[in-house]
Amino acid sequence: MVQLKGDERLDFLLAEEDMRIIQSDQVFAFSVDAVLLARFTSVPKTRGEILDLCTGNGVIPLFLSRRSQVNITGVEIQSRLHDMALRNTELNKLGSRLDMIHGDLKDMPAILGNGRFDLVTCNPPYFPTPANDKRNTNEHLAIARHEIYCSLEDVVKACSRLTKSGGKVSMVHRPGRLVDIIDVFRKYQLEPKRIQFVYPKKGKEANILLIEASRDGKPDLKVLPPLYTHQENGEYSQEFQEILYGK
Amino acid sequence: MVQLKGDERLDFLLAEEDMRIIQSDQVFAFSVDAVLLARFTSVPKTRGEILDLCTGNGVIPLFLSRRSQVNITGVEIQSRLHDMALRNTELNKLGSRLDMIHGDLKDMPAILGNGRFDLVTCNPPYFPTPANDKRNTNEHLAIARHEIYCSLEDVVKACSRLTKSGGKVSMVHRPGRLVDIIDVFRKYQLEPKRIQFVYPKKGKEANILLIEASRDGKPDLKVLPPLYTHQENGEYSQEFQEILYGK
Repeated sequence: MVQLKGDERLDFLLAEEDMRIIQSDQVFAFSVDAVLLARFTSVPKTRGEILDLCTGNGVIPLFLSRRSQVNITGVEIQSRLHDMALRNTELNKLGSRLDMIHGDLKDMPAILGNGRFDLVTCNPPYFPTPANDKRNTNEHLAIARHEIYCSLEDVVKACSRLTKSGGKVSMVHRPGRLVDIIDVFRKYQLEPKRIQFVYPKKGKEANILLIEASRDGKPDLKVLPPLYTHQENGEYSQEFQEILYGK
Repeated sequence: MVQLKGDERLDFLLAEEDMRIIQSDQVFAFSVDAVLLARFTSVPKTRGEILDLCTGNGVIPLFLSRRSQVNITGVEIQSRLHDMALRNTELNKLGSRLDMIHGDLKDMPAILGNGRFDLVTCNPPYFPTPANDKRNTNEHLAIARHEIYCSLEDVVKACSRLTKSGGKVSMVHRPGRLVDIIDVFRKYQLEPKRIQFVYPKKGKEANILLIEASRDGKPDLKVLPPLYTHQENGEYSQEFQEILYGK
């Protein structure tokens, strides 16, 4: 039996009825963003390898294990979260296909190998590092949300180096950073091919950006239909309920 | 009385019930894209100057003259279209506020002055120049649609040089060129601040991109709510009808 520690709880992975996940609001609970990225990204189905950077408690590898048969590696810098990712792998009996590494994504090209992966996914910290006194006082949350251990450029550079030529990089981020993201993607030979914007409801500005690029790809961008998370009345939209809970 | 020539016809400017426009399908009739750009762009209301590059028959200056009191200059390289723009100005009694110039946008910074305008709008050719045998055999349409006389970079460079620091550049283009556009905007100190994607109907990919940048602005992009031009049944959507015909 896998052990829960401290304030951890065991949650359902919603659409995956037979999967469970250990998480804690005090460390970092998986979010809508991870669910959306795991659904948005293209995946190699039966051949190749997937890497998930900034994997946290391993939620994206757990979701992707249902969409693909290939081996998935997760990398997390925070030991507390890495420990949860290890136990989530065991809890869901995925030890033969999921490998959770405790380390810094900047070291991964040297450790895992350049140009190795068919797909690299990442739900990185969204916000530039604030002054110390404006950071979240919970250090775990501050690291997950702010670019403390890695800047956007660090993340994209690592993604690019770890991906095969012709392989894909998928990321979830904030629309406000789109221009920076496109800038640094191109700097590292990642050509954006698919973008989807997620809106909280009709008439509101987008609040989530999903972007997939091809390593050394040719320019040819598609902007997918918009996705709304909520209806006018504040409830989840039909399409988002299907993503969360399955059809 | 303003004269119609050859295959020209006199159309309504739809939402502007008391405005008329001379156009011809054999040269270039204004499109949904021009209507959308004229509505999307921010405008200086009472002070400053507006410039419209690739103005064609002057449709964007005509629309903008209803949203703003300032002087508007249009630039068109094709003499046949410039001639129509002159007559459209006269037809709508806007000679005191609209100035239509026949010339190449690449020459305009030297002629009109660097950093002069508060707003520069542009509905440029969308497509890279094809081989001669694949071009539209109608040279007027080929020039309007393909980057024959000006590349995307030529257009953006001219927009940037003609705009004041803090002034705005608004453009309509194809979503497939978003990455190139952002790339070249940043190269010329134009920071994208507002983007809106237009979709033909629900469930389809975006087919029109509206983008506004600030000269020397700080990064802070907003992605506006999506706009649909058509309903499921193929008719114009309610919101698009209001844009076309007025509320």
